[in-house]
Amino acid sequence: MAGRTVRTEQAGATRQLILVTAERLFAEHGVYAVSNRQVSEAAGQGNNAAVGYHFGTKSDLVRAVAQRHSARVEELRAGQLAALGDSADLRDWVDCLVRPQFDHLAELGGPTWYARFCAQVMTDPALREIMVEESRASPSLREIIAGRDRCMPALPDEVRAERGDMARHLIVHMAAERERALAEGRPTPRSGWREAADGLVDAIVGMWLAPVRPRGGE
Amino acid sequence: MAGRTVRTEQAGATRQLILVTAERLFAEHGVYAVSNRQVSEAAGQGNNAAVGYHFGTKSDLVRAVAQRHSARVEELRAGQLAALGDSADLRDWVDCLVRPQFDHLAELGGPTWYARFCAQVMTDPALREIMVEESRASPSLREIIAGRDRCMPALPDEVRAERGDMARHLIVHMAAERERALAEGRPTPRSGWREAADGLVDAIVGMWLAPVRPRGGE
Repeated sequence: MAGRTVRTEQAGATRQLILVTAERLFAEHGVYAVSNRQVSEAAGQGNNAAVGYHFGTKSDLVRAVAQRHSARVEELRAGQLAALGDSADLRDWVDCLVRPQFDHLAELGGPTWYARFCAQVMTDPALREIMVEESRASPSLREIIAGRDRCMPALPDEVRAERGDMARHLIVHMAAERERALAEGRPTPRSGWREAADGLVDAIVGMWLAPVRPRGGE
Repeated sequence: MAGRTVRTEQAGATRQLILVTAERLFAEHGVYAVSNRQVSEAAGQGNNAAVGYHFGTKSDLVRAVAQRHSARVEELRAGQLAALGDSADLRDWVDCLVRPQFDHLAELGGPTWYARFCAQVMTDPALREIMVEESRASPSLREIIAGRDRCMPALPDEVRAERGDMARHLIVHMAAERERALAEGRPTPRSGWREAADGLVDAIVGMWLAPVRPRGGE
């Protein structure tokens, strides 16, 4: 039994090492530019097939990296949601959507790779599906979107869809760009992740409330 | 002289072929994932050093791909700007910022790679500098930013900087995502590039006008 426990602990440590290494390599070079073999080697695994053995395919590995973070983000989101009163307005709902990821990045401490990893994954249609599936499994996210929609003016379907895309791009790419600037010692517009989230919430609320102007061949 | 003219024409055709090939490969795989040698081979050049001979470094090649489009975008922008009256408002200036690139994508006809190429270049800090230099050389862009700033409420410097970043992310990534969806036969929220530009202008104006809320440890 003792031998089996040690082996299980070793396997757990190897998995963690592979996940941390994969996140960093994916963040810095792109998911498709990095092979499972390169991840295994960079994680110091003598066996080049270690990723395959411990995780399976590239998609399985991407999902596992995402899940390392999503449980904590979900926890932060559920906490923020529980603190919302009955008078929650659009800003409160948008705040619940944006802030948990930024709080998570703040608590990870620098340097982080998670924001750039998300940007890499979210700009690939096949990999993005993995993140979308993860999101669908989140009860808090469904509640936030329903709450937000109750506080918003009615919008044509195509405008609602594109503004949802825009909010996603803003959250993903502003976080990734901030993380990249921190990693490279370049200046950032805001002093911390919390302040960056403040700025995003203001902007996304403004975007959702923007009037839809007819053009009519203008 | 005739022989020299033919050789010049051949060199011009080879350069065009390399530029079109590089744009497609960079758009689909990322700028760093594709070597100059791969571009030369995909462009059907027997000499693997063709890119180096005709353009120089990777950065020189990226700049040449960008310049293939920037002259036309600048022309469209100058035309739209010239049509602005004295009563131009924030929406008009934002429209001048967004629309020329979308009109250019529309007139290129499908399939295009330029929007994805821009997204690849703009998410890389070193390569982005190339695009920023190109923009600085644009007199119409300076005029638009000055005009926009005259129509906007005063904003703290950090908010102005981050909203500028946000507008850039929205333009670049909404265009790239639309182009990718078209290339892969997936649905898009808007029927055409023109309508996509309409939606972006509404949203970016809303974002610039969004009030800045103090948080104060809320």
